[in-house]
Amino acid sequence: MRQRMEDMVRAAQAQICAGLQPFDERAFQQDAWRHAESGGGVSRVLQDGTAFEKAGVNVAVVGGTLHEEALQAMIPKAELSAAETAPRSHRFAAVGLSIVIHPRSPWAPTVHCNYRYFELDDGRWWFGGGTDLTPVYLFEEDARHFHATLKAACDRHHPGYYARFKKWCDEYFYLPHRGEARGVGGIFFDNLQGDGEALFAFVADCAAAFLPAYVPLLERRLPLAYGEREQRWQGLRRGRYVEFNLMYDRGTRFGLRTGGRVESILMSLPLLARWEYGQEPEPGSPEAATLEVLRRPREWA
Amino acid sequence: MRQRMEDMVRAAQAQICAGLQPFDERAFQQDAWRHAESGGGVSRVLQDGTAFEKAGVNVAVVGGTLHEEALQAMIPKAELSAAETAPRSHRFAAVGLSIVIHPRSPWAPTVHCNYRYFELDDGRWWFGGGTDLTPVYLFEEDARHFHATLKAACDRHHPGYYARFKKWCDEYFYLPHRGEARGVGGIFFDNLQGDGEALFAFVADCAAAFLPAYVPLLERRLPLAYGEREQRWQGLRRGRYVEFNLMYDRGTRFGLRTGGRVESILMSLPLLARWEYGQEPEPGSPEAATLEVLRRPREWA
Repeated sequence: MRQRMEDMVRAAQAQICAGLQPFDERAFQQDAWRHAESGGGVSRVLQDGTAFEKAGVNVAVVGGTLHEEALQAMIPKAELSAAETAPRSHRFAAVGLSIVIHPRSPWAPTVHCNYRYFELDDGRWWFGGGTDLTPVYLFEEDARHFHATLKAACDRHHPGYYARFKKWCDEYFYLPHRGEARGVGGIFFDNLQGDGEALFAFVADCAAAFLPAYVPLLERRLPLAYGEREQRWQGLRRGRYVEFNLMYDRGTRFGLRTGGRVESILMSLPLLARWEYGQEPEPGSPEAATLEVLRRPREWA
Repeated sequence: MRQRMEDMVRAAQAQICAGLQPFDERAFQQDAWRHAESGGGVSRVLQDGTAFEKAGVNVAVVGGTLHEEALQAMIPKAELSAAETAPRSHRFAAVGLSIVIHPRSPWAPTVHCNYRYFELDDGRWWFGGGTDLTPVYLFEEDARHFHATLKAACDRHHPGYYARFKKWCDEYFYLPHRGEARGVGGIFFDNLQGDGEALFAFVADCAAAFLPAYVPLLERRLPLAYGEREQRWQGLRRGRYVEFNLMYDRGTRFGLRTGGRVESILMSLPLLARWEYGQEPEPGSPEAATLEVLRRPREWA
């Protein structure tokens, strides 16, 4: 399964970079790196481009020793079967695809996508991942298209997946200290166990849904003109993105604790972020309308 | 002691704002706020000014219920006497002064200062705090002046304070995932118990040392011209500042968990921060020299 997952994520990396490249005059740069313990990865990054401020499409195939603390940073104890009786450290192997795209235009949404397969040396294994959208300005038709595309991928595998994973996504990408969702969600799941074949097919389908879910949004929003007001609001929303990733994101915490490559992990952070004291958008403005949706997540599909 | 600490920090707030105001054409704005449970604070903030991108001088006098988890987020279990036998939640009272100044010029360093007094309903109490400097570009004479001023304040109270609190500062303001100190340090201490009178006098002296330690640095650095290269490096260093505050700072974590005012707590974040993938300064450059000192903390006094 490890090898099949690796083949799948490497192919997805190539395909997704090929699908995004036409939007930008600058080319994706490739960096191969080695993990502190075993394995390594290939980061493909396009930075400071014409369409993308930062776009990263990364593959990691790593192994190592996982202490209980790191395991719990990754998966809450309650969710992990047999954690109570497990030894204090494990050998692990992980294969993952991680994508974060921060477009330059405030009209074009940030997108994040991650699919991963984990194995522990005691025989436990699981899949995790998801794809979610973080608009700077809400376009309802974009949120609906994005969710509908992910729902179609889910529905091909289980009628209950989309509802369950949409809810999980809303709960996970949430900033409690702000009372705001990070974005308009998508799907998120972790610790999926059971029929390995079926789960692999599902995860591969989700990865394949990335371009169809996102590319139409770029096509619609990249041509639109914007000004300083939109850039300022973009900076503030990127500040919230940074808050979530550094304070709450399990993948970030897990990666930094297990000798992951700092540059690849923190590639998820935007090129620029902004924090203003006491900033609140004007009532009735497009900024306020966007914030309203982040404070009260909706159904989109 | 609570009342005396409150009088001291309110007077220090007025004096420090008065000392900083002449550098900027924009005025400090004042915001009074109420804590979720009891008490409140006064934030004095100067944002987007001519000299300061963001300057906050805040007083908080708050009370509430402190769950064991929040207490441990604030003070590691090992440092807190009687934590094992204490009840699972406490009433607490806290009085604090918090200052963060992010100047606009990359030549002028960011400074942070916090002095606080805590009481629990079981009779335990302690002082904590410190003052530390985060240059974007290292000027050795600035680091020496800053440390010498703090050392003089320490030496008036105990011959061992400066060495102990300088080391504590270097250890506390450290980003393990980067292998870098946040800045060139200063002093830091927490959980100081014993002779309340003597400790109050020490803390008051430290607060009084803030302007003499920092103002000469502003006088030297604010008049110097800078360009895009310096602003870009400033953005990157501010990114590190954000990483520390959101990932490691106990005050930030404690404040956000105990119903503190988000705007006042995250006021410490800079107006702008930047993350570039794979950025490393050119060997031999002033940026590389600054980074070298952050990677290997020095003695300055």
